[in-house]
Amino acid sequence: MTDAAQAFVPGHITGFFTIDQDPDPTKAGSRGGGIAISEGVTVTVRPSDHPETYLNGDPVEMDAVDRVLDALDVSAQVRGVTDLPLGAGFGVSGAMALGTALATNAAFDRRLSERELTTIAHGAEVQAGTGLGDVVAQQRGGVPIRLEPGGPQDNELDGIPARTRIEYHVLGELATDDILADAGDTLTQAGKRALSLVVGEPTLGTFMRASRQFSREADLVTPAIRDVVLDVNEAGGTAAMAMLGETVFALGTGLSDAGYDPVACHVHPAGATIED
Amino acid sequence: MTDAAQAFVPGHITGFFTIDQDPDPTKAGSRGGGIAISEGVTVTVRPSDHPETYLNGDPVEMDAVDRVLDALDVSAQVRGVTDLPLGAGFGVSGAMALGTALATNAAFDRRLSERELTTIAHGAEVQAGTGLGDVVAQQRGGVPIRLEPGGPQDNELDGIPARTRIEYHVLGELATDDILADAGDTLTQAGKRALSLVVGEPTLGTFMRASRQFSREADLVTPAIRDVVLDVNEAGGTAAMAMLGETVFALGTGLSDAGYDPVACHVHPAGATIED
Repeated sequence: MTDAAQAFVPGHITGFFTIDQDPDPTKAGSRGGGIAISEGVTVTVRPSDHPETYLNGDPVEMDAVDRVLDALDVSAQVRGVTDLPLGAGFGVSGAMALGTALATNAAFDRRLSERELTTIAHGAEVQAGTGLGDVVAQQRGGVPIRLEPGGPQDNELDGIPARTRIEYHVLGELATDDILADAGDTLTQAGKRALSLVVGEPTLGTFMRASRQFSREADLVTPAIRDVVLDVNEAGGTAAMAMLGETVFALGTGLSDAGYDPVACHVHPAGATIED
Repeated sequence: MTDAAQAFVPGHITGFFTIDQDPDPTKAGSRGGGIAISEGVTVTVRPSDHPETYLNGDPVEMDAVDRVLDALDVSAQVRGVTDLPLGAGFGVSGAMALGTALATNAAFDRRLSERELTTIAHGAEVQAGTGLGDVVAQQRGGVPIRLEPGGPQDNELDGIPARTRIEYHVLGELATDDILADAGDTLTQAGKRALSLVVGEPTLGTFMRASRQFSREADLVTPAIRDVVLDVNEAGGTAAMAMLGETVFALGTGLSDAGYDPVACHVHPAGATIED
């Protein structure tokens, strides 16, 4: 056992998704498409008799993190540090779960593989109700296309071979668990259509078009989001809504060109990693 | 179509492997374990009526590259630049094939996915006889464990969750195609035993032990390799032979500590990427 271990998990912007229920949380999840970004969460795990989870220094309750620690049978302090906003569609909870799994494995010498740790984090996130597909996408990196739902034993991932600058602009929060609980079959049907578009033509341009179509068809676009997406379009760029947050993301300098003051990052080609 | 496009593919040190024949080159390949490293090959593809492949400025014949260009139905110049030695067990031919696939897709706007491009490069490399498992490992990055042979449609990959400094010392070349052609069932049986060890305990320490066991059991260790591996061991480090080259690699500062003057690099967490 080392004193502490640290992992970095990229943020993940989801463009479109389905909801695939299953009694087994490692088989449940979602299909869809997203972008792993260079802004992410650094998670440090330290053995402790006083387990506590902190995010940017503040104590937080994160059910997915607690479930990962339980699954790995440890008592530890977990500290996440990130510049990403919470509840805005960047997969912070998934990053906390996956980072906790990776760092706990190292700190407590648990000797599990990347797939095993991803399975634990994915199952914890699904059971906590805070996400369905972020964890497996964050383990992969790049621009993941999730062809099948579930953890690494069951899902099937492809990717769009592209790297680019990404800009994002956060308008507010959305509660993932409420929307997931209320969502009907309409959302999943829209997600399947979007996925089919991107599978047929795996380019960033098609990904953005499919994401906009999904947010419209699933009836998730707020008026404020719609205005920003239209502004980017007017300025010659391409933007869409991040699932699930009141957040707009754009390729290249789309938001800057439209006069916004966005945060800039990049496609992150690597998945989650333990730090050396 | 853009003027030219560029991809980076990490080198790949194979520690142990099996040979899995199949009439379909996208299903043939190998199981095994290796390390994607930060030293790699940058491949630039430029449309041209005078197709030619260069490596570090010199014209070369690379059957796998020609097959990728054929499969994508293009005429192009391919330029690879690398600090890695050829024929020394770093997967340079696989990197050239995969980098050619990724950069050609971008330069000629072919709109294929990462899996489709990897399938093309893997099949080309298998048909050329220059490698069996490098391409899929190089597409993944990190410390890949190849649980099943073949391209992305058929194989199954896991990984050891670890990052570390890697050192390597090249003694000479080995001809992969000759060894693959001559290898009998002994090699594959040794590869299966090594894989089983690492699956049971996916740590870097076990990976190195399994690699040493494999090279002994498959009767691939040259006397010069054996001496260097023993020197590293004497100095308190851990080293093994890179498949297939007369090359020793070590974790951390293993070769330096034993008095060698090795090249140093790191585990590369990302797979092959198109450059922005």
